[in-house]
Amino acid sequence: MNVETEVLSRVKPSPDEKKRLLLVVEELLQKVDATAARLGIQGIRSKLVGSAARGTWTSGTHDLDIFIPFPVHTTRDELEKYGLLIAREIAKDADSFEERYAEHPYLNMQYKRFDVDMVPCFAVDCASNIKSAVDRTPFHNEFVKERIRGIEDEVLKLKQFMKGTGVYGSELRTQGFSGYLTELLIIRYGSFKEVVSNACDWRPGTVIDLQEHGSVEHKEPLVVVDPTDPKRNVAAALSANRFARFIDVCCSYKEKPSIDLFFPAPERPLTDMEILEMISERKSSFVAIVFRKPDIVDDVLYPQLDKMEASVRALLEQYGFIVLNSGRWAGKEAIVTIELSSARLPCVKKHRGPPVWERKHAESFISKYRGSEDAFAFYIEDGNYVADIKRKFPAAKHLLDERLVTCSMGKQLTEAVKKGYTVLENEDICNLKEEDFRRFLRKWKTE
Amino acid sequence: MNVETEVLSRVKPSPDEKKRLLLVVEELLQKVDATAARLGIQGIRSKLVGSAARGTWTSGTHDLDIFIPFPVHTTRDELEKYGLLIAREIAKDADSFEERYAEHPYLNMQYKRFDVDMVPCFAVDCASNIKSAVDRTPFHNEFVKERIRGIEDEVLKLKQFMKGTGVYGSELRTQGFSGYLTELLIIRYGSFKEVVSNACDWRPGTVIDLQEHGSVEHKEPLVVVDPTDPKRNVAAALSANRFARFIDVCCSYKEKPSIDLFFPAPERPLTDMEILEMISERKSSFVAIVFRKPDIVDDVLYPQLDKMEASVRALLEQYGFIVLNSGRWAGKEAIVTIELSSARLPCVKKHRGPPVWERKHAESFISKYRGSEDAFAFYIEDGNYVADIKRKFPAAKHLLDERLVTCSMGKQLTEAVKKGYTVLENEDICNLKEEDFRRFLRKWKTE
Repeated sequence: MNVETEVLSRVKPSPDEKKRLLLVVEELLQKVDATAARLGIQGIRSKLVGSAARGTWTSGTHDLDIFIPFPVHTTRDELEKYGLLIAREIAKDADSFEERYAEHPYLNMQYKRFDVDMVPCFAVDCASNIKSAVDRTPFHNEFVKERIRGIEDEVLKLKQFMKGTGVYGSELRTQGFSGYLTELLIIRYGSFKEVVSNACDWRPGTVIDLQEHGSVEHKEPLVVVDPTDPKRNVAAALSANRFARFIDVCCSYKEKPSIDLFFPAPERPLTDMEILEMISERKSSFVAIVFRKPDIVDDVLYPQLDKMEASVRALLEQYGFIVLNSGRWAGKEAIVTIELSSARLPCVKKHRGPPVWERKHAESFISKYRGSEDAFAFYIEDGNYVADIKRKFPAAKHLLDERLVTCSMGKQLTEAVKKGYTVLENEDICNLKEEDFRRFLRKWKTE
Repeated sequence: MNVETEVLSRVKPSPDEKKRLLLVVEELLQKVDATAARLGIQGIRSKLVGSAARGTWTSGTHDLDIFIPFPVHTTRDELEKYGLLIAREIAKDADSFEERYAEHPYLNMQYKRFDVDMVPCFAVDCASNIKSAVDRTPFHNEFVKERIRGIEDEVLKLKQFMKGTGVYGSELRTQGFSGYLTELLIIRYGSFKEVVSNACDWRPGTVIDLQEHGSVEHKEPLVVVDPTDPKRNVAAALSANRFARFIDVCCSYKEKPSIDLFFPAPERPLTDMEILEMISERKSSFVAIVFRKPDIVDDVLYPQLDKMEASVRALLEQYGFIVLNSGRWAGKEAIVTIELSSARLPCVKKHRGPPVWERKHAESFISKYRGSEDAFAFYIEDGNYVADIKRKFPAAKHLLDERLVTCSMGKQLTEAVKKGYTVLENEDICNLKEEDFRRFLRKWKTE
């Protein structure tokens, strides 16, 4: 069995699985419309959108997106009020539910083993007249549905390939490919194989414009012009790193197709012994900043963690440390891990002053440092005065203990860090036991 | 007694000292002319040049420059032959003598406690027609003599100020101010005090052109156009560092005149204890490369040492070490001393490969490092492949032991280093006992 066939045999839903899904969908749509009518809300025709509507969902995923379109003249307040009213009625039969927020609130519920988003929207006449971001989705749905018939399996293979290689998902934690983007790629290139083959030639600045109607310059590495909106880049959320990784795995696959790219063996958590090995073979210094993860959703958490990681790196570099690598991880705790060339710097720091001939600046530099107790030496180098002075923070841990709170890292993370944090160095990282964190450390030690 | 008066009382030769000098000069000039005539060499009128001829020599210096001018039509071979013939005759009455080489050979002798250079030259008609570099000297002599009368004492003060602050001497070891340059400065500004005051406003690019006839652009920090040759910069040998230092000491003196700048207390050699203190308070790493000084003159030795210092710094930086300071010293041994942020680097080295989309380069990088035993990790960063590989030289000493001979450092130093060298680290530097080397170390530890 060739690789693609094998993948399909594992990810394509069985007729039974499909039937079960369709039954639930039918039930929900009818309930929504009937409930609306019963509540006196006129003209509601709810619809299924997303991969379930297009036959591009992989076996085992049970995500349903039910949209409840309101007439355009509805006010935003009315939309939120009546939309949620209807959804809450349905939720009475759900196993559980919660209110979630995008641009406006919607209801997420667990319903007969399906994960259902029930989203009120405005029934606008075209995608460039949307009143809320979610209003676009029905247009995406129409565009894809009309073109994907007969090549749904290609989408399934590409989705699984992206999941297996860690680039699937447009949420802020992953910054990868969305389902819609995946479908557009299949529509553009015709098959999984052709997407892979073409992606090998991608480079930053690649533009895909199915309708040839793009009207705006974009700065993201990949630009896929939204067929329903000439101003929008569907790949705007794709990070440079995920873009590069996708090219990389496509090239690997093209050279040597392997089922492992679709279904990689789970990474084994690093053992204590392996952590110690990692430290002793690299002889660099590891520093982990550990604190209690605040209770916020991933789309808020990860951007703040990214910001924190960047500003901790900047802080360390500002004080003379050389950062080799870093990463962020969140489980019960949130952890920013930094690999430094060394966590200790010499006590001496070269403090370069003004040129000898800039007398005004020179005089204040001289009066501060020449013959001062704080200066080990004072001399002229390349025309500038230089004082060899005492470094304020020769130890990275000390710097982080004193200055971490000055790092910019978003509201909730700042609050969390102010409540307390620990800085662990090298072998003390073995005290961190969460398995998924130990997997994250694989970044530094290939099996 | 004010500072300048006191300085003069210590550096101005007494009438007796002057008389002794004039007697010896008279004796030598007569001997040269008589010897020439006796040997059948016609029309030689030897002359005294340099500071002795101009009354700008400081007490205790006993340097005499006797020039033997030959007619312009003389060949270079004849000049060398007959010039040395005459000089050697005089040297028969000297305590000792040796042949030295500039553009052509001349004789240096110790004669009645005077250090005498006896230099054959061509009697050209103007300084722009010189046949040999030394031919310029008589023109310099005439120019200064005519203008220095009455302000010789100002030259004495300026010379002593430059000696005391370490910027006097145009040889390649010091790269400071020559005697002629010092005299031109006094002629330009009129007095020691005015030179100091004006130098405080100097900056790179300052031009002094007494004859207003400069005809060439120069790139050196200070340009003093030779009054006898519009194309020549008298300050060409002045290094940027000595230039800056002179400005610095002039500003210090202007703010607070002090006799110590003219006659500084001798620097005290660092004791073993002070060396250990210097290392432990800085917590940086010191490395000293020690080898037998080859038997060559300073003007050959120091440029090669400078070259060696620069290329050792470059070697260390190329392999990832951070150089803080360095210096070179020569006594019986020659020593290049380097202060590093750390003499040890982590074993891991980030090896940045090509961007993911440069497939040709990418493939060779991948085949070399992905999954290789030599790579701790392989990943994508900012669009580039990166391999965390084993660093070849984590220890500076090991690098220097293996690669010092590849450094470019001039012919004689390369030979000397190939014969053998030692690399000392930190406290082992205490094994170096020469007092003057211990004084050189003051650079790192102010008293």
